[in-house]
Amino acid sequence: MLRWLTAGESHGPELIAIIEGLPSGIPVTLHDIRTDLARRKLGYGRGARMKFEEDEVTVSGGVVHGFTLGSPVAIRVGNTEWPKWTEVMNSEPIENYVPSAGRGAALTRPRPGHADLVGMQKYAFDEARPILERASARETAARVALGAVARQFLGALDITLVSHTLAIGPVRVPEGSALPTPADVDLLDADPLRCFDPETSALMVAEVDDAQKEGDTLGGVVEVLAYGLPPGLGSHVHWDRRLDSQLAGALMGIQAIKGVEVGDGFLTTTRRGSQAHDELFEIDGEIERSSDKAGGTEGGMSTGTVLRVRAGMKPIATIPHALRTVDVATGGAAAAHHQRSDVCAVPAAGVVAEAMVALVLANAVQEKFGGDSITETRRNLDSYLAAIPDALR
Amino acid sequence: MLRWLTAGESHGPELIAIIEGLPSGIPVTLHDIRTDLARRKLGYGRGARMKFEEDEVTVSGGVVHGFTLGSPVAIRVGNTEWPKWTEVMNSEPIENYVPSAGRGAALTRPRPGHADLVGMQKYAFDEARPILERASARETAARVALGAVARQFLGALDITLVSHTLAIGPVRVPEGSALPTPADVDLLDADPLRCFDPETSALMVAEVDDAQKEGDTLGGVVEVLAYGLPPGLGSHVHWDRRLDSQLAGALMGIQAIKGVEVGDGFLTTTRRGSQAHDELFEIDGEIERSSDKAGGTEGGMSTGTVLRVRAGMKPIATIPHALRTVDVATGGAAAAHHQRSDVCAVPAAGVVAEAMVALVLANAVQEKFGGDSITETRRNLDSYLAAIPDALR
Amino acid sequence: MLRWLTAGESHGPELIAIIEGLPSGIPVTLHDIRTDLARRKLGYGRGARMKFEEDEVTVSGGVVHGFTLGSPVAIRVGNTEWPKWTEVMNSEPIENYVPSAGRGAALTRPRPGHADLVGMQKYAFDEARPILERASARETAARVALGAVARQFLGALDITLVSHTLAIGPVRVPEGSALPTPADVDLLDADPLRCFDPETSALMVAEVDDAQKEGDTLGGVVEVLAYGLPPGLGSHVHWDRRLDSQLAGALMGIQAIKGVEVGDGFLTTTRRGSQAHDELFEIDGEIERSSDKAGGTEGGMSTGTVLRVRAGMKPIATIPHALRTVDVATGGAAAAHHQRSDVCAVPAAGVVAEAMVALVLANAVQEKFGGDSITETRRNLDSYLAAIPDALR
Amino acid sequence: MLRWLTAGESHGPELIAIIEGLPSGIPVTLHDIRTDLARRKLGYGRGARMKFEEDEVTVSGGVVHGFTLGSPVAIRVGNTEWPKWTEVMNSEPIENYVPSAGRGAALTRPRPGHADLVGMQKYAFDEARPILERASARETAARVALGAVARQFLGALDITLVSHTLAIGPVRVPEGSALPTPADVDLLDADPLRCFDPETSALMVAEVDDAQKEGDTLGGVVEVLAYGLPPGLGSHVHWDRRLDSQLAGALMGIQAIKGVEVGDGFLTTTRRGSQAHDELFEIDGEIERSSDKAGGTEGGMSTGTVLRVRAGMKPIATIPHALRTVDVATGGAAAAHHQRSDVCAVPAAGVVAEAMVALVLANAVQEKFGGDSITETRRNLDSYLAAIPDALR
Repeated sequence: MLRWLTAGESHGPELIAIIEGLPSGIPVTLHDIRTDLARRKLGYGRGARMKFEEDEVTVSGGVVHGFTLGSPVAIRVGNTEWPKWTEVMNSEPIENYVPSAGRGAALTRPRPGHADLVGMQKYAFDEARPILERASARETAARVALGAVARQFLGALDITLVSHTLAIGPVRVPEGSALPTPADVDLLDADPLRCFDPETSALMVAEVDDAQKEGDTLGGVVEVLAYGLPPGLGSHVHWDRRLDSQLAGALMGIQAIKGVEVGDGFLTTTRRGSQAHDELFEIDGEIERSSDKAGGTEGGMSTGTVLRVRAGMKPIATIPHALRTVDVATGGAAAAHHQRSDVCAVPAAGVVAEAMVALVLANAVQEKFGGDSITETRRNLDSYLAAIPDALR
Repeated sequence: MLRWLTAGESHGPELIAIIEGLPSGIPVTLHDIRTDLARRKLGYGRGARMKFEEDEVTVSGGVVHGFTLGSPVAIRVGNTEWPKWTEVMNSEPIENYVPSAGRGAALTRPRPGHADLVGMQKYAFDEARPILERASARETAARVALGAVARQFLGALDITLVSHTLAIGPVRVPEGSALPTPADVDLLDADPLRCFDPETSALMVAEVDDAQKEGDTLGGVVEVLAYGLPPGLGSHVHWDRRLDSQLAGALMGIQAIKGVEVGDGFLTTTRRGSQAHDELFEIDGEIERSSDKAGGTEGGMSTGTVLRVRAGMKPIATIPHALRTVDVATGGAAAAHHQRSDVCAVPAAGVVAEAMVALVLANAVQEKFGGDSITETRRNLDSYLAAIPDALR
Repeated sequence: MLRWLTAGESHGPELIAIIEGLPSGIPVTLHDIRTDLARRKLGYGRGARMKFEEDEVTVSGGVVHGFTLGSPVAIRVGNTEWPKWTEVMNSEPIENYVPSAGRGAALTRPRPGHADLVGMQKYAFDEARPILERASARETAARVALGAVARQFLGALDITLVSHTLAIGPVRVPEGSALPTPADVDLLDADPLRCFDPETSALMVAEVDDAQKEGDTLGGVVEVLAYGLPPGLGSHVHWDRRLDSQLAGALMGIQAIKGVEVGDGFLTTTRRGSQAHDELFEIDGEIERSSDKAGGTEGGMSTGTVLRVRAGMKPIATIPHALRTVDVATGGAAAAHHQRSDVCAVPAAGVVAEAMVALVLANAVQEKFGGDSITETRRNLDSYLAAIPDALR
Repeated sequence: MLRWLTAGESHGPELIAIIEGLPSGIPVTLHDIRTDLARRKLGYGRGARMKFEEDEVTVSGGVVHGFTLGSPVAIRVGNTEWPKWTEVMNSEPIENYVPSAGRGAALTRPRPGHADLVGMQKYAFDEARPILERASARETAARVALGAVARQFLGALDITLVSHTLAIGPVRVPEGSALPTPADVDLLDADPLRCFDPETSALMVAEVDDAQKEGDTLGGVVEVLAYGLPPGLGSHVHWDRRLDSQLAGALMGIQAIKGVEVGDGFLTTTRRGSQAHDELFEIDGEIERSSDKAGGTEGGMSTGTVLRVRAGMKPIATIPHALRTVDVATGGAAAAHHQRSDVCAVPAAGVVAEAMVALVLANAVQEKFGGDSITETRRNLDSYLAAIPDALR
């Protein structure tokens, strides 16, 4: 069982992440982590913040000379903006501290679509800063850092993840378009919207430009693919062992995600049964599926074909032309606080979704194959595959 | 923390379910459980099986004289068909047992869209019975039984759930239709498809009739609503504390579900930010939201407005005109086993989805308010609500 | 990860237990479970209740034809006394029910040393029946039933458990006595106190006789041994992965246990370091330990030598010459309720402790080796052992 | 539910700890954490290392201006020795790195009584450094840091912990000695062995001196007391909800602990039932217990009297006159590596045990009372106490 926690506020000194339960011998370097953190900043339509938010990464435990020890892996992602926030976000009491009109000003105009108002109600604060500091999508950097480690684990087992953008607002890759493979990752990362279809990508750029011009924001849909999975991750025996259940929980656990699909998802619900399933054929002595509508799971288990899951992201809720809200200090109508200036964070959400999928799959692999060193886990995986009788392959 | 497990095979003697962690003093009777089990069988397009599958329910622990004790609640749901299966499914070894050509025949033609093939690979069986017996949707009866208990808990806190059918195949309730309320539940249960819009319901009946005539099956979309939630269930502080994450995992953990949405879900991803969020207004001294596009959560927390989540169900994968598969005993092409004869199970899926939502919400309530008797939990809830300052209401 | 829950009250219709996460292919029969349940009733000094409490066992799920399916295993242990309790313990409301002076009388004199008083405070009851029904040691029958399944799993991996009685009250097996092995289990079960030292056993019998004559009760100490463990179960990397931590929690989780030791336990704390550890020697090309003071764990991991853990049980708190208490209905002094008539339950506690150890070890095996069929788990275990380099054996 | 993880190696750059699930509004400062870390270094018989191991503490998240936010709290405990270890313990690959004869030398002589040998077997290393770096008791600094936070939470609810030394080797505080109270903590911390009985303390000092002279080490027993607990933490309803089970697991999860007791523990097992329990009396309209043999729990629940638990620590396994072992590089006999020079770490173990007890109790409080701000948790606790009927007080 893998366990992981993240900590840290958006404008605090750093994010901290710990993952526990990985085998020894997984190759992990700062480069691996930084690469994914940099990919998280990709995407047309990101504001200035992404630029100055350069990540200082430290591995504080669990890795020596580039390989995991089997002990918990701890990662810090520093905040280069921290010097500006040492007063507002100091962990220590500050004598005679008066929240100033600047960074420290009380945030009393809760933003619609954010945790602000309900967070204040729940945690008993009279302004939103203590809430939004943690609710911010900045926290996903910690997940991406852990996801990079999980990805290295999967990579050592020849399991590879790819994510891409399916839709930006109403602009969507045509149904039936080719899926990107691991060989296409660099190409994807080079695309302004991490979209695999060049024509659609161009339309997406236009859509972002238009939204920006209108002082508005955009959401969209991302898809994560996993190549090289063995059959049998997850299980049908109990609901929370189902791989699709775990994936859905993980993806919906990302800030701003409002929908999740496995395979063709909601489209499948409109098909008749005769057209909705992946039939089985014997081809050259192997059992093959005619299609991949199911997205690589049956009965809550990976089938060994490409896993395919999707997450739908709402448009960014902090909008240049601010939404209407109430100032809880005065009770009067107000314009919502404006903390961020991205038009669209969908391409980044794909990288975050990859990280979450990597963490779920790493756990599922560990659950099925056990092992305390990567050699042992790999051996168990290989011998499982070898033991599947020919009649079932 | 609530914990719950279910056990039992589709044709075994009974399903068993245990839930642990509920307070004392919750009113629970067999009638409550039987009512929900009966509702699970509703729906136009169900086959003969639903009729003879009459449920014998027993509460074996945790409830005395109609109230919970605070100890684990155990429920048995007997299988009235068991006498026919005592040989095939006996837990004990049977001397000289030869799987006969009848009920005991080896199931070597794995059904596409089911756990059959990958289950055999994973659990090392050469036929599918040991897999499909557990993967069957019959298991959801155990969840519905537990969900009935969770619903009683929520009911004692004035939280009420309603589910309804949004779509059957391509036939869908128009966007913007009125939402059913707790007062409409009997009406909904009386509708052949548990659809709140009479015109759409009629179209759905026609769709089912047509699919049946074609020897085909249908999927669809259900929506679960929760009325009376306090603000602040779930949390933004860690991904797996987010209520929407937990709901998504629970709904995707139902057999045949391929998509999950919170609020307007994927539709929201196509809107611009200025049109996608629920703005806040002060009305008569209270903060009100202009709309409920978000589905009653912000930052992963219930806002106190109606919670609204959706699950998309693929069409039943066991199809009268059987799907193509491979016989793993011979290696040759074959028609898939046919174990069931429903055309559409979507209305029932709504009831199962209700149960899963009830279990998630019961856990979230317990997590936030604690309490070992319903009086204590209720008192903690009430005092929390009373303590929210006027400025934040 | 194994998960398991038990449910059921002492005088309810039955106990129910579910265990989830076991691989397929484990041989399990009713005989295996009944054998352990019968062993739980062993021991000189048990009262009449143990005799009439004959256990009706049913396996309701997870096992077909004597082998596990990989799905949750559910076991029911019926209460043959149930007909006498159908009114008092009925799960349904009973119209005009008046707790009678007999079985249904309100238990308002909480017994010292029991959950009665604090349970009433916590769960908001004004009498103790709703508490003591679940707190009763009767519940351990459900654990023993699950333990029998776990033991079958371990047995298929050649891991065997033995328990024996180390002390009854002040009468204790001399330090340094020989340890029983799996070959001695029948002998142990035949001993009136499950004590491996015949002379001590005779003294224990005399002690029980004396206590009985005095209207008093006795506690004692049991030890559980596990033979055939591989090295490396549990882990040093996090406190709750330590096998000794898990064992201590499991043993202290048994009713009436007040102390737990690993290996020589508290005796070791009085030794100097030079005399307290198991030194390592190379003998015939293998690394051997000079002794087993540590009880078979180092750094929270099984070393591959015999695991040895102990649990200390307080004397039964329901004493013929009743303890003094307060009647909470009247506020006056009173004699505690007397519900049971055993003098000593220590031999049975050994069987319960075995079950708890079996469940912990089964989980640790599953965590380290994974596997969804017993063949797979066994293969992973064997290949792990084979891969340990000669230099480390 | 509280969750917490620690990470970091003994000679790595720092230890990292995250705790998740605490309410907002708990007062926490660096001073609180540093105080407990300093107390962890107390004790006669500590070697030089404790002195240079000065702790640099940082709170990286979850606390602003001295109060928790409700978000995860992250703490770093820096290693001032890190500059000497930057090569040996660097997380990054080092080109042409050759483990030198100094700090980097391969540790091939596994120390008896440590994780070294079995850790190498489990995690597939050919030397012990990757194991001992994490298995080291240095890790307990991270737990003490988290324990300081948990203690602040408990303190805000008027629950206070005290720990003291009961025994050093064979030298033991006489049975029946007075228990220290919260008012005695400074006195205890000033005692060379954190022993509350001055005469015994003097004997302990002599014992440590003698062991040091002999080049040997000592273990002992510590006791943790919790004052101010409400009745009803933990539960009898399931084994792992029992507070004593959780405490036993937590204490046995500390490095070098081999025995755990609740209340009088093993001594109780030698008493007859009539002498072993805490009888109940009505005194001035309140129910009082005649004694506290049980250690403040009944039926796995806190009774509201002083909680009292003990942990027995084996003597330090790294002994100046080194234990015998095998060199796994050569296969020959050898003296074990010597990494540390303490004679006795028992007084420090008391502080670590306090931390573990604090973490268990904090979780139990949160489970019973819920609450997302300390105000809410406190209010729920107070109203629970107020609602207990007079007849049950």
